Amino acid sequence: MQKVQYYQEQFMGYLEAFSKERQPENLYNPINYILKLGGKRLRPVLTLMAADVFQGSSEQAMHAALSIEVFHNFSLVHDDIMDDAPLRRGQETVHEKWDVNTGILSGDAMLILAYQLFENYEAHTFQALAKLFSKTALEVCEGQQYDIDFETRDDVTIPEYLKMIEYKTAVLVGAAMQMGAIVAQTSEENQKGIYEFGKNLGIAFQLQDDYLDAFGDPKTFGKQVGGDIIENKKTYLYLKALEFSSEDDKLQLQHLFSIDPTDNRDKIETVKQFFVSSGSAEATKTEIKSYTQKAFDVLTTLNMSNDNKEMLKAFGEQLMNRNV
Amino acid sequence: MQKVQYYQEQFMGYLEAFSKERQPENLYNPINYILKLGGKRLRPVLTLMAADVFQGSSEQAMHAALSIEVFHNFSLVHDDIMDDAPLRRGQETVHEKWDVNTGILSGDAMLILAYQLFENYEAHTFQALAKLFSKTALEVCEGQQYDIDFETRDDVTIPEYLKMIEYKTAVLVGAAMQMGAIVAQTSEENQKGIYEFGKNLGIAFQLQDDYLDAFGDPKTFGKQVGGDIIENKKTYLYLKALEFSSEDDKLQLQHLFSIDPTDNRDKIETVKQFFVSSGSAEATKTEIKSYTQKAFDVLTTLNMSNDNKEMLKAFGEQLMNRNV
Repeated sequence: MQKVQYYQEQFMGYLEAFSKERQPENLYNPINYILKLGGKRLRPVLTLMAADVFQGSSEQAMHAALSIEVFHNFSLVHDDIMDDAPLRRGQETVHEKWDVNTGILSGDAMLILAYQLFENYEAHTFQALAKLFSKTALEVCEGQQYDIDFETRDDVTIPEYLKMIEYKTAVLVGAAMQMGAIVAQTSEENQKGIYEFGKNLGIAFQLQDDYLDAFGDPKTFGKQVGGDIIENKKTYLYLKALEFSSEDDKLQLQHLFSIDPTDNRDKIETVKQFFVSSGSAEATKTEIKSYTQKAFDVLTTLNMSNDNKEMLKAFGEQLMNRNV
Repeated sequence: MQKVQYYQEQFMGYLEAFSKERQPENLYNPINYILKLGGKRLRPVLTLMAADVFQGSSEQAMHAALSIEVFHNFSLVHDDIMDDAPLRRGQETVHEKWDVNTGILSGDAMLILAYQLFENYEAHTFQALAKLFSKTALEVCEGQQYDIDFETRDDVTIPEYLKMIEYKTAVLVGAAMQMGAIVAQTSEENQKGIYEFGKNLGIAFQLQDDYLDAFGDPKTFGKQVGGDIIENKKTYLYLKALEFSSEDDKLQLQHLFSIDPTDNRDKIETVKQFFVSSGSAEATKTEIKSYTQKAFDVLTTLNMSNDNKEMLKAFGEQLMNRNV
């Protein structure tokens, strides 16, 4: 996957050129700050990759790739305010370093800047990109709202949960890839296909995130293992455990997800045992494999070289081969 | 101006159709709430009017008109959070009726919905509208940031203040009219001209708002007379008074704008006397007239029927003939 590193470097160069000083600095400095905080730049890399596999040029797709990254960071800035999060990638969040109002306004400007980047394309490409972008961005807002709604609901179903992570996370991965396909001017079928590939991989990735949060290796998992359990977050693991449990176990698990002990170690261990004994842990792994397979199945239907199909599949496998 | 009423009614019908129930309701109900709170619908009316005067159809311009209104209301929702305002048009603000997070997220969705409305136009019109929209929306954010920055600055100049109100308020009036012109597919010159007409009228209107805040008739002025003085807001009246005052008067006025007495009546009276005696009140009136005249001068250069020029001028005069 040396290509990925090439895309990352290519992208960082363009990002550097984009992040010039602009007035008023209290509006633009926070934008440059969050954009340079780092991260794997997964979404823009996917845009560039998709443009290449459909015989477009990754250089040409750069504006669309940056648009996706700017939007993603916009959503982080506003989500961090809503979650009252002090840290992002180990650094202060925008509303902590500046203040909430700065976070709101700079975020708004980022959403507009994301659209503005499409102005680098001619009218029909512009419209196709902006349409996909608006649809996706609205779904991300809806996903975030469902996530908030679920916090205070006791009757969240598995299909509802899957729709929430699809909207909140996965559609942007799909859109990132479709944008590369749009810039490459490939067929409608290829566009839809690569979107489905990205979306299903995105759902698998998010489910894996749920799984790793409980069962990941503390040494390699980026976040605190057990974080979701501490926060009583109704993840796939939790909802599936409820579904599989006897009435007694269900009540116990629900009780555990209502308390907030000072020392969380016992709670985390007990909950994890529930996840395993109920069969939820295994069912989650099966679901991850199923969405990954769905993504790979779409690949076979696409009109592109076999080398490129192999490359995309290898990329997907690498992405899903985090330490389970 | 029966035509204005016709546009308003036409617009309200379309708004009604747009505000359908959508899921998740915690995201969309606040949007429908703020959009139906009322107001004069001045900006969308200007879009429809501009489409008509350039031989387009106001029906066709309806999506662009709604986009402008949705954007305007988005900025109200986020500004009200930043200003911690409890009321908007006499009703609870969105973040009061729901909460701050709802205000942030619903506002974000509105910004996206505003772009989505352009999808009703073919690619070239879409791109022209979205480009103008992005430029304008970013300027509105910059204007809001300058307004925030000015609160804690003691050296704001008159040109800086004028740029702030141009960005925060006037460019959206100009853009509202240019969008009507774009939909009507009139010449580039007409488009730029009607934008300048709207922008200059917008500046005049905002300066008049500053003036009326101090010298308006409490019976007809919508807001509390003296509100800006109570809040120590550095308006055109204040900045011009500082410019025209002796060193002693300047210090006194600056002192008055640093205190926050329980009973504001004396403060308001004294400040108003400063505004008059320094010549600032008169200078503000002159500046209002000058921007209004600038708007009317642009009209004469436009390629449209004299009837329409008269109509636009009469509309501008009516707008500026609030109780001074």
